[in-house]
Amino acid sequence: MDNFQFWSPTEFVFGKDTENEAGKYVKKHGGTKVLIHYGGNSAVKSGLLDKVKISLAEQDITYRVLGGVQPNPRDTLVYDGIQLCRDNGIDFILAVGGGSVIDSAKAIALGVPYEGDFWDFYAGKAEPVKALPVATVLTIAAAGSEGSGDSVITKEEGGLKRGFGSDLIRPRFSIMDPQLTCTLPPYQTACGATDIMAHVFERYFTNTQEVEVTDRLCEAVLLTMIKETPRVIADPNNYQARANIMWAGTVAHNGIVGVGRSQDWNSHGIEHELSALYDCAHGAGLAVIMPAWMEFVYKHNVMRFAQVAVRVWGCPMDYENPENTALEGILCFRHFLRSIGMPINFEELGAKEEDIPALVDKFGIGDGKTGGFVHLSAEDIASIYRLAARAQI
Amino acid sequence: MDNFQFWSPTEFVFGKDTENEAGKYVKKHGGTKVLIHYGGNSAVKSGLLDKVKISLAEQDITYRVLGGVQPNPRDTLVYDGIQLCRDNGIDFILAVGGGSVIDSAKAIALGVPYEGDFWDFYAGKAEPVKALPVATVLTIAAAGSEGSGDSVITKEEGGLKRGFGSDLIRPRFSIMDPQLTCTLPPYQTACGATDIMAHVFERYFTNTQEVEVTDRLCEAVLLTMIKETPRVIADPNNYQARANIMWAGTVAHNGIVGVGRSQDWNSHGIEHELSALYDCAHGAGLAVIMPAWMEFVYKHNVMRFAQVAVRVWGCPMDYENPENTALEGILCFRHFLRSIGMPINFEELGAKEEDIPALVDKFGIGDGKTGGFVHLSAEDIASIYRLAARAQI
Repeated sequence: MDNFQFWSPTEFVFGKDTENEAGKYVKKHGGTKVLIHYGGNSAVKSGLLDKVKISLAEQDITYRVLGGVQPNPRDTLVYDGIQLCRDNGIDFILAVGGGSVIDSAKAIALGVPYEGDFWDFYAGKAEPVKALPVATVLTIAAAGSEGSGDSVITKEEGGLKRGFGSDLIRPRFSIMDPQLTCTLPPYQTACGATDIMAHVFERYFTNTQEVEVTDRLCEAVLLTMIKETPRVIADPNNYQARANIMWAGTVAHNGIVGVGRSQDWNSHGIEHELSALYDCAHGAGLAVIMPAWMEFVYKHNVMRFAQVAVRVWGCPMDYENPENTALEGILCFRHFLRSIGMPINFEELGAKEEDIPALVDKFGIGDGKTGGFVHLSAEDIASIYRLAARAQI
Repeated sequence: MDNFQFWSPTEFVFGKDTENEAGKYVKKHGGTKVLIHYGGNSAVKSGLLDKVKISLAEQDITYRVLGGVQPNPRDTLVYDGIQLCRDNGIDFILAVGGGSVIDSAKAIALGVPYEGDFWDFYAGKAEPVKALPVATVLTIAAAGSEGSGDSVITKEEGGLKRGFGSDLIRPRFSIMDPQLTCTLPPYQTACGATDIMAHVFERYFTNTQEVEVTDRLCEAVLLTMIKETPRVIADPNNYQARANIMWAGTVAHNGIVGVGRSQDWNSHGIEHELSALYDCAHGAGLAVIMPAWMEFVYKHNVMRFAQVAVRVWGCPMDYENPENTALEGILCFRHFLRSIGMPINFEELGAKEEDIPALVDKFGIGDGKTGGFVHLSAEDIASIYRLAARAQI
């Protein structure tokens, strides 16, 4: 096991009607002038935004609102948010929404006290030394941003999608009411579930040996998702299934299922180019990319792929030909994704094989290599895009 | 799933030689005058205490030391510690040791700013409003106190053993070097492993339905312990096995494997009377009590016991007679405990069946009932002690 630090200081407030406590928790965590940041009209129509406003007013907390966050959140709105915060002396940012809203809120939080361009952090040109406190009222189980220090923003000009992570932007608290996720359509629900599973797989495929506890925690989240996702697709109002998925989404990405070892993250990087170019859902892109990545790399450690096939997918172990078991596990994953309504190839996603050279070019590793499990070259990444483009079951 | 709050703000610093960073982390978390609290001579002889002192001195942090914490830590030393802190203007307590040392440090931290008797908190007569900050350098994988807000203290007069929990005494940071646990003799190692497993089982047996994610996380820790404990008993210097167990011990008790549902905790209460009366190791007491408790209560939910038998112990499911599977799981647990050198009955523990009435009397529930899974009366508890007294495999 490698040396590690693990710090997940977010206070999680989970369960029915907890959104009515938003004001109480903002006060507890020191907020006095709040920016409520949100996405589209659903937060307005559902009455959620009003509930949050009322709970803030009950604590005599003033606020401004900034809506309009899009999926794959844009830098342009981040700049607007930074200006709004500065103009109004905002000291706390409350994200009401899913991962895109939270990521946008985190970018604003970094930008407000920084004299330069906030994009410097995402471009790897600067390290932040402070940020406004951020908290969340989560409405989508997917990104895990409610419990992580990560944020992904897309630069409008050129469609550059880049991630950044810092403990400074770990949410102070996250309010998680599974009821809020019940109105999410099946397709978006399945995209979220795919993202959650991908967050685990990125950590599962490691070159660090003998970290059984982390393996088992990863498998715990995957097994939960395999049980609960079909239940929620079949019955969107199944509270118990929604609750299990929502909490699994947090556990999958607050760091606990990745401690003590190397991680991969190539599938996320490879997918980011798809959602940046086609503006498709990140989860749908992962459904197409991740099994293709698995097919491309599994020979690097057949027994690890066999392990997940047996422990998670329930495949029988083929002791004479472990490779068969490894491949069966990948096939199970693809069948599972198809069963919950996810695309499995470029055509179903709305992507085009002829764009592969452009995708690889934008990925931008040149002659370098990338990834924690298998180091991939630009040519390897092109191969994975091709496998993804043509996948069939 | 029940509504819940989960907050685990401790910064975990895990891995080889991390004890040399103690001073750096005390400084980061605001300590300037430190009480180093420890147990017996092993921390001195091993050189650990010197390393910690040097790392504090390097940061220009002054300190006082107070050793002598015994297993089942006593109130008497807590009073000494409180006085020492007050006399010296101590503002930070660093526990260097296992659960007993950490629990004692937490009690001191509660007592220093409190005008009354610290025992008020443990006796349920008062709630603390503040505490000195506590941090740990962990040397034993067992109690999970390095990541929890819990503390158990024994009142010297009358041998009353009582627990108390508060977020105020969650450690600010915990330094966890698995190498420090390699010198622990096999018996103490096995006691720690038993305690870790018991922390999970106390949470596993619940009446709240459909919390798959918590079930699976529990099973993840148990499966890890079943794999790693025999490895470390066979080879005390197996760093990887020590590391897996050490981290599993934290995950087992920082709250993450218990969220969203009722818990039991009767086995801990029933055991506390054994270690209070006989001064035996808590883990050894649990090895005797917990399987007996399981035998007594399993009919309350046969399928839950069958689930753990299948998923954790790998028993085949007897679909015609699930009760057989449930009982087989309990038997597997007892065999496992025996295999790692734990006692399984009163004689092996050094306890006496004729003391049962006194044990039940001290447990002190009178005509009431206790426990989150099955409500037990005093007579039920006597029955469990009798099952434990006479257990054989």
